[in-house]
Amino acid sequence: MKTRLTEMLGIKHPVIQAPMAFAAGGALAAAATKGGALGMIGGGYGDPEWIDAQFNIAGAARIGCGFITWRLAEQPTVLDRVLERQPAAVFLSFGNPAPYVDRILGAGAALICQVQTLKDARHAMDVGAQIIVAQGGEAGGHGEGRGTLTLVPEIADEIARRNTDIALVAAGGIADGRGLAASVMLGADGVVVGTRYWASGEALVHPRILADSLHASGDDTIRTRVLDIVRGYDWPQRYSVRARKNEFVEKWHDAEAGLRRDLGPQTALWDKANTQGDPSIAAAFVGEGLGLIHNASPAEGIAAQIVEQAAALLLKAGS
Amino acid sequence: MKTRLTEMLGIKHPVIQAPMAFAAGGALAAAATKGGALGMIGGGYGDPEWIDAQFNIAGAARIGCGFITWRLAEQPTVLDRVLERQPAAVFLSFGNPAPYVDRILGAGAALICQVQTLKDARHAMDVGAQIIVAQGGEAGGHGEGRGTLTLVPEIADEIARRNTDIALVAAGGIADGRGLAASVMLGADGVVVGTRYWASGEALVHPRILADSLHASGDDTIRTRVLDIVRGYDWPQRYSVRARKNEFVEKWHDAEAGLRRDLGPQTALWDKANTQGDPSIAAAFVGEGLGLIHNASPAEGIAAQIVEQAAALLLKAGS
Repeated sequence: MKTRLTEMLGIKHPVIQAPMAFAAGGALAAAATKGGALGMIGGGYGDPEWIDAQFNIAGAARIGCGFITWRLAEQPTVLDRVLERQPAAVFLSFGNPAPYVDRILGAGAALICQVQTLKDARHAMDVGAQIIVAQGGEAGGHGEGRGTLTLVPEIADEIARRNTDIALVAAGGIADGRGLAASVMLGADGVVVGTRYWASGEALVHPRILADSLHASGDDTIRTRVLDIVRGYDWPQRYSVRARKNEFVEKWHDAEAGLRRDLGPQTALWDKANTQGDPSIAAAFVGEGLGLIHNASPAEGIAAQIVEQAAALLLKAGS
Repeated sequence: MKTRLTEMLGIKHPVIQAPMAFAAGGALAAAATKGGALGMIGGGYGDPEWIDAQFNIAGAARIGCGFITWRLAEQPTVLDRVLERQPAAVFLSFGNPAPYVDRILGAGAALICQVQTLKDARHAMDVGAQIIVAQGGEAGGHGEGRGTLTLVPEIADEIARRNTDIALVAAGGIADGRGLAASVMLGADGVVVGTRYWASGEALVHPRILADSLHASGDDTIRTRVLDIVRGYDWPQRYSVRARKNEFVEKWHDAEAGLRRDLGPQTALWDKANTQGDPSIAAAFVGEGLGLIHNASPAEGIAAQIVEQAAALLLKAGS
């Protein structure tokens, strides 16, 4: 399946492995790339030592790196340190990419900007994004409320109006070939896949948390601010986190003030549960696509499986 | 485009016009049916006189009627009164359909159950739904949080597991042929279209409100409870309303208690604005698909246009 995205990134399949903070390390990124997708390290909050270690694990694999954009201002050196690694792409989300565009393009990396609204898509195009990721609220981890099904075609129309060659990628809720085929129909040149890679053996996910998630439904996920409060992250109010519902999230979701009052003990409890992999308290940062995933499959094969299923569906529909 | 849905409902195009409360009257339903879709009266809260009047306007057109399910318990006679009209289908949403299944099927009407979760889809199948509408949170009017892109394939998998011949219909965010083509890729047999019909001349929408909406984006819509509070409706907490953002909604969205304290004057203000078509206060009950709609097009042609675009996309993709 050749698209504008595969050409721009020089990849076999129109699939970008989502740069999931903490979960997407070098092993996952290298395996995704080996399988024909673009593998990405989840640079997240910008811990330079962790990112260095993950690039070392990925070795010579051609990969990219993602960042939480608003956090880069607090970590002024981490972007240059990553650019020295000559990443294939830098993936920015959640904030204004403008201050970083020149350095990224100057280093020869592709600039991927993930947006959650048409308004932010327009801004990303204005400042020089080469690839726009339209992320719907179905996605795991941070995001906003708009659905992938409407955000993708609305941004596709904007790209058409501007008559540019920007590539458009759908993100949020895409876990199999049906999601890729649907995204292509909506006007996307490819997809970002998160939860399906989260559920591979290569992601940095506690095996108990993973095993416990494979029989859940998309119904069992929720967008919440609880998981930022407990980690002490000062996220802009517009963003929330989609994760699996569990006792901890359900206890505090409508009681944020109570969580803030008892923050020290609750953070200790939560940290310990994450170390131990206790699914009743620890977080599974997964999207609604979880309900389409019933097996942990090796990361290397994921992109090809998705493309094969999508191609079969599209061929059948056309005949 | 022939599908299980077109066969079951005896319609030309796999399109159901959404039974939008207040907006979907007999003129819209008749025009949608004339155009090859299944036209529906929005029976909504169950006002028997209004529903009678709309059936009379629709005349001999073969149409269906929708209800807010939890409200039927408070309006015990309205369902039978509608069934005497021999509707092609009854469309139930937001509540437990079980008490009404036998009367609907006994009257020879198709039973369409709209759901917002996999859990409710399972229940609807258990109690005898013939057609399941998977409604994502992109939809205008009442709904919940899951996205169409994941809800449709997850319910499709459940239907396949049960090996039944239940038809599956996607709703929420589908405003053109791209949405229909994507829905087919996700496993749907057809689509429910709301906002595109809302924006036809035949819907019962104030012309000033309509004209003001044709240049908006999906970004400009929001899920809120403000519009139920101001109308004095006691909706179950799980449901909210998607509508266009305006001064009134933005003032009260995070101040529900204040709205309740000043309810009398605010309801009077809101009612007056709706009569006058003042878009800064009156509600436009539209979905995120609004951003794909830039013209008010006559209802009769909508289904054919959507199918034509979808068919062209699917044919091109398959070649």
